[in-house]
Amino acid sequence: VTSEREFIADHRPDLIADLDEWLRIPGISAIPDHHGDVARSAQWFTDAARAIGFPAVEVWADGPWLPAVFAEWPSAEPDAPTVLVYGHHDVQPVDPLQLWEHPPFEPTIDGDVLRARGAADDKGQLLFHLLGVRAHLAATGRSTPAVTLKLLIEGEEESGSPHFEELLRAHRDRLDCDIVVVTDTGMIAADVPSTVTGMRGMVTATLSMHGPDLDLHSGVFGGAVPNPATALARLIAALHDDAGRVQVPGFYDDVLELTDAERELFARVPHDDDAFLQVAQSRALHGEAGYSTLERIGARPTAEVNGLAGGYQGAGHKTIVPSDAYAKLSFRLVADQDPAKIMKAVDDFVAAHTPPGITASLEWDGAGVRPCLVPIDTPAYQALTDALSAAFDGAAVLPTREGGSGPEAALQQAVGAPLVFLGVGLPDDQIHAPNEKVSITMLQKGAEAAAYLWTGLARVGAAALASGRTPA
Amino acid sequence: VTSEREFIADHRPDLIADLDEWLRIPGISAIPDHHGDVARSAQWFTDAARAIGFPAVEVWADGPWLPAVFAEWPSAEPDAPTVLVYGHHDVQPVDPLQLWEHPPFEPTIDGDVLRARGAADDKGQLLFHLLGVRAHLAATGRSTPAVTLKLLIEGEEESGSPHFEELLRAHRDRLDCDIVVVTDTGMIAADVPSTVTGMRGMVTATLSMHGPDLDLHSGVFGGAVPNPATALARLIAALHDDAGRVQVPGFYDDVLELTDAERELFARVPHDDDAFLQVAQSRALHGEAGYSTLERIGARPTAEVNGLAGGYQGAGHKTIVPSDAYAKLSFRLVADQDPAKIMKAVDDFVAAHTPPGITASLEWDGAGVRPCLVPIDTPAYQALTDALSAAFDGAAVLPTREGGSGPEAALQQAVGAPLVFLGVGLPDDQIHAPNEKVSITMLQKGAEAAAYLWTGLARVGAAALASGRTPA
Repeated sequence: VTSEREFIADHRPDLIADLDEWLRIPGISAIPDHHGDVARSAQWFTDAARAIGFPAVEVWADGPWLPAVFAEWPSAEPDAPTVLVYGHHDVQPVDPLQLWEHPPFEPTIDGDVLRARGAADDKGQLLFHLLGVRAHLAATGRSTPAVTLKLLIEGEEESGSPHFEELLRAHRDRLDCDIVVVTDTGMIAADVPSTVTGMRGMVTATLSMHGPDLDLHSGVFGGAVPNPATALARLIAALHDDAGRVQVPGFYDDVLELTDAERELFARVPHDDDAFLQVAQSRALHGEAGYSTLERIGARPTAEVNGLAGGYQGAGHKTIVPSDAYAKLSFRLVADQDPAKIMKAVDDFVAAHTPPGITASLEWDGAGVRPCLVPIDTPAYQALTDALSAAFDGAAVLPTREGGSGPEAALQQAVGAPLVFLGVGLPDDQIHAPNEKVSITMLQKGAEAAAYLWTGLARVGAAALASGRTPA
Repeated sequence: VTSEREFIADHRPDLIADLDEWLRIPGISAIPDHHGDVARSAQWFTDAARAIGFPAVEVWADGPWLPAVFAEWPSAEPDAPTVLVYGHHDVQPVDPLQLWEHPPFEPTIDGDVLRARGAADDKGQLLFHLLGVRAHLAATGRSTPAVTLKLLIEGEEESGSPHFEELLRAHRDRLDCDIVVVTDTGMIAADVPSTVTGMRGMVTATLSMHGPDLDLHSGVFGGAVPNPATALARLIAALHDDAGRVQVPGFYDDVLELTDAERELFARVPHDDDAFLQVAQSRALHGEAGYSTLERIGARPTAEVNGLAGGYQGAGHKTIVPSDAYAKLSFRLVADQDPAKIMKAVDDFVAAHTPPGITASLEWDGAGVRPCLVPIDTPAYQALTDALSAAFDGAAVLPTREGGSGPEAALQQAVGAPLVFLGVGLPDDQIHAPNEKVSITMLQKGAEAAAYLWTGLARVGAAALASGRTPA
């Protein structure tokens, strides 16, 4: 009998072949022209899950959401716990296209690195699960997994999961589980295994400011009427004070301040600001005064400008007072901030910062994403870190908090089960940026940890997982 | 013998036919793809000037500037003064195209109104000169004008005349004159003749702010690195205080403050803020505290944002810390502000407002345009207002100051002659905006005033014009 690790190493070519096929489908959920590709992407994964043995695989396209995939592989073991793996198959947009060294949807391999949009976020990580369950079966000699395995693969996570809660409600009867395993995150480094214990929430909006009903000659009218681009800039400038603190009244009201113990855990995570800056290709740090970089990213909320537009943007110059100006804004949230309360607070802030003669409108993208914080003293967390440690040759697994956002809190709330994160992205994977990449070796580690985890969770048992206590 | 006015009325169809032909050429100087059209536009005017009898017409394309037209029609009268008429044949860009009710380069007539890009700014006004000189000859029975007439028609005024001073230097020997007549401005209203006595200067620049070298995931990096869009907004916000005063140190140092007498002249100009707002399609006034609307436009400098760009601008949302953000900025200047000094002051301001980790660059478009202020106690000014008054049935002609910018100061400095403004645009012509239009009747008034002006200036004589004294 082969080991999990050997099986995975032997089948590395399958993993690469799957990546090569799936990554060619440009399933960009944020761009309506690509919604057909999102559907093709869902179908691809459906076929792939069936091909490795999942007895039941369905595309869920019966609501306003983009096609999601649900797969189920019941365990033959009596009383086996049920695991729900969550991930997403849609990808980020690719502009600015000219910064890609290779076409984003033509995967290229260079040693251990595979480059393409979605390689790490999140297609590569979903593919390690397909390999992982095969390794689990091969190494344990089973014909069904030790746990009942459910996969829920969303199709609009990169658009902020606008219909995910509705999807969960519509299919709630299929989603019963004893634990949720989220696979859409990363680790500290290739040799420093870690697991995420927090994700930020998020609300995003397009802020439009409208001034005169037409672009005006800035000579004839400039200096005498309000300029919406100036008004927009002044509002954005008012979002932060000089110490980087968000100035929206009430913004921090529900933020769980870090305890000394939590700050101590943050301090244990190996982190080097210079290396961080190198990955970010930024020439300085900047953020809320009084917090470390990891704390700023993992435990503090933000107000960020994602895009600006308005007036003349072409070659040369056009001397106008523009009629309109726009900003794409996003707010990352931490426990226990409530997206609805933050949206209301920002609405009020915008109203208070809209000068006479300017009409502002703030269009929120859906209901937002709640922040998620995972307790680290549970059997579920212990099983996860045991599996990861085994895949990384016994190394200790550090708890981290990521700054990104996913629908984890909504999922946890919907199914009422504990949740852990199993993800093997690396900090320099350039997800959401040009030249996204993934380490194939890291995907193999993910497959291996998953294979161990199904065995481990079966050992813990459904009752202990649900109760949050370790078995006697 | 027909009168000037009758001749012009009889030949209104010629004016319309010329407008219809010339306005179809999209000579947008700000857009390199249209530079071939700018050349075609110059050729069109060359042919038109030749056709009505100008014995010498040349396209000047012998430098880095876009093609300009120079035409000369010597007077047969001994000692006739020489008049240099200045205008421009290039036009503004047309975006946002979807706001045009008719295609911008397919002129449409509705009663007395002709709509097209360039109808008022400046092709219509140049065409009234062609009709005006024909009327002058017909009504006075001359075969050459009473003054030696030179036309200098620039091809890159709408791009800020970046090479105009170089053009003036290169062709200085052809530009000797006793008076400059600028035709690129407007009047208070169709029944309130007026003439411009001041134009603002201008400097324009593109401000680029660069943060990280790639767009970053705002979850992974947001809140920990500087965001160039936020930095840009904070710099723009710092440009003005809450009272609308520009905060660039030294900005007002050379501004000629209005005298009580000048403020009294401003107050005489009929102006209604409500009507102004209606034309501007703006819901409020906004500007430097302590000044009236006309003073703000005519006698006060500004800092204006003409466009914003950066990060993600497409559909949906992309949660990034953008790598770059841009603003198109323009500063309107008044006497005696010096473009070079203002550019230096803004350079310093940008440097002082660039936070750590952000690289700012400010790219100025050429050397800028100087402000121009016309004295109103000269024979040249008197001849102009007499001609205008005659065209408007004896109405008094009010001095105004426009907020727009042209290369008048440079021209005046180059030729060393007094300068007056003869222009018949109207405040609601929507120049630089969608649906630009012109009143054909106003163009006829312009032609009539020009026809009278050549007779009037000949009567004043070259010596008196140059000396600035009225003839004995």
